[in-house]
Order: sequence, then C-alpha cells, then structure tokens
Amino acid sequence: MEKIRLIDIKEEILSENKGLAAKLRKGLKEKKVFLLNIMGSPGSGKTSLIKSTIESLAGHCELAVVEADIDSIVDSEAVSALGVRTVQIKTGGFCHVDANMIEKALEELPLKKLDLVILENVGNLVCPAESDTGALKSIVILSVPEGDDKPLKYPLIFTVADVLVMSKLDTLESFDFNVKEASRRAKALNENLKLFPLSCKTGEGLGDWIEWLTGELSAFKNRSI
Amino acid sequence: MEKIRLIDIKEEILSENKGLAAKLRKGLKEKKVFLLNIMGSPGSGKTSLIKSTIESLAGHCELAVVEADIDSIVDSEAVSALGVRTVQIKTGGFCHVDANMIEKALEELPLKKLDLVILENVGNLVCPAESDTGALKSIVILSVPEGDDKPLKYPLIFTVADVLVMSKLDTLESFDFNVKEASRRAKALNENLKLFPLSCKTGEGLGDWIEWLTGELSAFKNRSI
Repeated sequence: MEKIRLIDIKEEILSENKGLAAKLRKGLKEKKVFLLNIMGSPGSGKTSLIKSTIESLAGHCELAVVEADIDSIVDSEAVSALGVRTVQIKTGGFCHVDANMIEKALEELPLKKLDLVILENVGNLVCPAESDTGALKSIVILSVPEGDDKPLKYPLIFTVADVLVMSKLDTLESFDFNVKEASRRAKALNENLKLFPLSCKTGEGLGDWIEWLTGELSAFKNRSI
Repeated sequence: MEKIRLIDIKEEILSENKGLAAKLRKGLKEKKVFLLNIMGSPGSGKTSLIKSTIESLAGHCELAVVEADIDSIVDSEAVSALGVRTVQIKTGGFCHVDANMIEKALEELPLKKLDLVILENVGNLVCPAESDTGALKSIVILSVPEGDDKPLKYPLIFTVADVLVMSKLDTLESFDFNVKEASRRAKALNENLKLFPLSCKTGEGLGDWIEWLTGELSAFKNRSI
C-alpha cells in the first residue's frame, strides 16, 4: 500500500513537471535558443564532453552552460575558466534537474544573445530520465569503464535520450566493453538513438559528434516555429 | 512553492522509511544476521566486489545476496552462478532500495541459517544515500575512472557510509585519480569512514577489506543484543 501511494505522488509531480517543461520548450523555440540536456553517471565524462564541445564550437555560436550539482561548484569553475557564461544550480540533495529549476537558471542568462544552452544534469543514470527539463535534445553518456551492460540495467534513460555518447574510448583496452554490444543493447530500446563512440582525451570520434550537433543547431535556426 | 511541497512529501516518506528500517535492523540483530548495504555509481564495481567477497568468505560463513536493479537480472545471474542464494528486487524505476523492499526480499531467505546478507543497491550515488535500508553497515564504492572529486559533488553518500572502497585500483595509470586526495575529501565529510583502496582484478588491497569485514562479522556474532 505504501508503495502505491508513493507512485501516485511521483506521477503527480512528474505530470506537473511535464506541463512546465513543454511551456519552457515552446518559449525557447520562439527565442531560437537550443537547450541541450547532458545526462550520465557520476564520472562518465559530462564535463569533459561539454568542455570539448565548447572548444569545437568557439566562434560558431553563442552559448552558455547550466551546471547542476547536489553540491560544490567544481564543474562550473572548470567551464567558466573557458570564458563561457555559466549558471550553477545547487540541487541541495535532489537527484535530478526539473523544468522548474531550469526556468530559474534561464532567468540568469541573456537568452536573446544565445544560440545554445548546455545543461549538465546531476550525475545519475536513473532519476534524470524521468524528469523532462524542457530540453530540445537529450544526450546520455555511457563511459567505457562503466560496462556495456548498462542499457540492460538502466533502460529508461537510453529510451528517452536522442543521443548516446560512448565516452573514454581510449580506455577500451583496460575494460571489458564491447562497443557493438552496447550499441545493439541501446538500439533495441530506442531505434532512433544516434550513437557517438568518442574520446575527449584523444579527440577520436569527436568530429562526428560536433558535426551532428552543428547540423541540429543549424536546422533549428532555420526552422519556422 | 512547488519545490517546498516536494520536499515535504519526501521528508514524510523518508521518515516512515526510517521507522521501518530501525525495526528491521533490530529484528536482524536478534536473528544474528548482518545486513551489508553496497552502494555506488553504475559500473563502479559493486558486483565485482560482491563476487570477490563471496569467494574470500567461502566456508567461513553462510551468506545470501539481495540484488536490486531497475530492470534486468544480469547481476543475480552472475552471483548465483557462484552457488550463492540470491534474491532479485526489480525496483521498476525506483532509484534506490528502501526498507520496505528489503523486508519483502528477506522473507524469501532462510534467515535462521544465515550469517550475512549482502545487498547490492541500485547503481546511483545520490538517492540510496537518503534511504535507510535497515543495514548494519553501508559501503560506498568509488571507482578510479569516476574521478577523485566525487566526495565534493555527492557528499551525502560519503557522510552516511561506514566504508569507502576505492575500486579498480589497477587502472590508476589511465586516470587522473589521486587516492590521497579522494581519501582526504571523503574523511573531511566523515572522519570515521574506513578506507579500502583495492582492485578485484589483481586482488591488491582485497585482504584488508576482507579482514575488516570478518572482524565486524565476528564482533557482531559475539555481541549481546
């Protein structure tokens, strides 16, 4: 009985969040601001991907970053060191970012001047999957050291994401990770998932990811609402 | 306002759980069954530590494993292949294990015959920290590939745990992970935290962990309630 009550509360919160996220997404489309949500386990390489992406896009578009963490501002510091405008959300124990938090974070940014806002979600392969942030596209990162069985164990996040980045590809020799197997398992959950195996350390595969992102950004800019 | 309501609901659920967990812990003490809760990110090496622990304790005590996953039974299969009685909890989207789930899992086990029950919590560095499972001791695993900044970013789990296992020590050369720095950051949150840097692959450091665990088990057996 306890369990059933818990689910009801959860559904109610998620449903309210969905409405707010849809409103947020509509507003961002009107302002021509592309919100990109980056999800993944702690230490999967979210900040590294964001830093590499910022470097690759330098001069091509105006961007800002929203960093969400339970506590600490180490990621914001790393990102703002690249000269990029950064807003830090401290979730204070919350395990994911919801649309309400994003709405508040976006108020701190000069949206009229921006093309792209990258959100680094809380490091968590479970809860962020359930909570719509208002993002136009969502990325899940799975790092080689985590293992290729993760799509079996955390299916929802691979189902809701638009892109799977397989990170830390340079460490393939040290771990039992089969890129083909991980891809097959993720595709079985979500046949539209785009796959980018890459290493931010060596740069391998990074070009394909950037090409996809710039293509999406340009299609978004030219789209009528 | 929305946020405040969410916190209230959460507090209420957590407080109910705390009562049930305390009751469960008392019952297990009476039955002389030691419940060990293993927490950590997806892919941090929880199953590997459990498998190595089972092999090291073989013949020394009677144990069973409770595996909790959002979905899939791959870990249960790996553990039960070692000839150990295993109960699988499918949390169906829930991001952590609570006392209610453990109570149900324990009903499936012959507690009178057991000395130790190892719980593999859901792979998550956030939510399991908040929910008492009724365990006597809780372990958090931080793997070298995740990075030594995790105590800064996910402080609660390092605060509530009794033991920090730093896993995949054999991969130190491939990653920017400073064992001393990780230890210092974790100890700053919780000065009583026991630290075990180890590798299940090479066996390095595993002896110290097993020595600690068998010491705890034996003290627990000989303790008057």
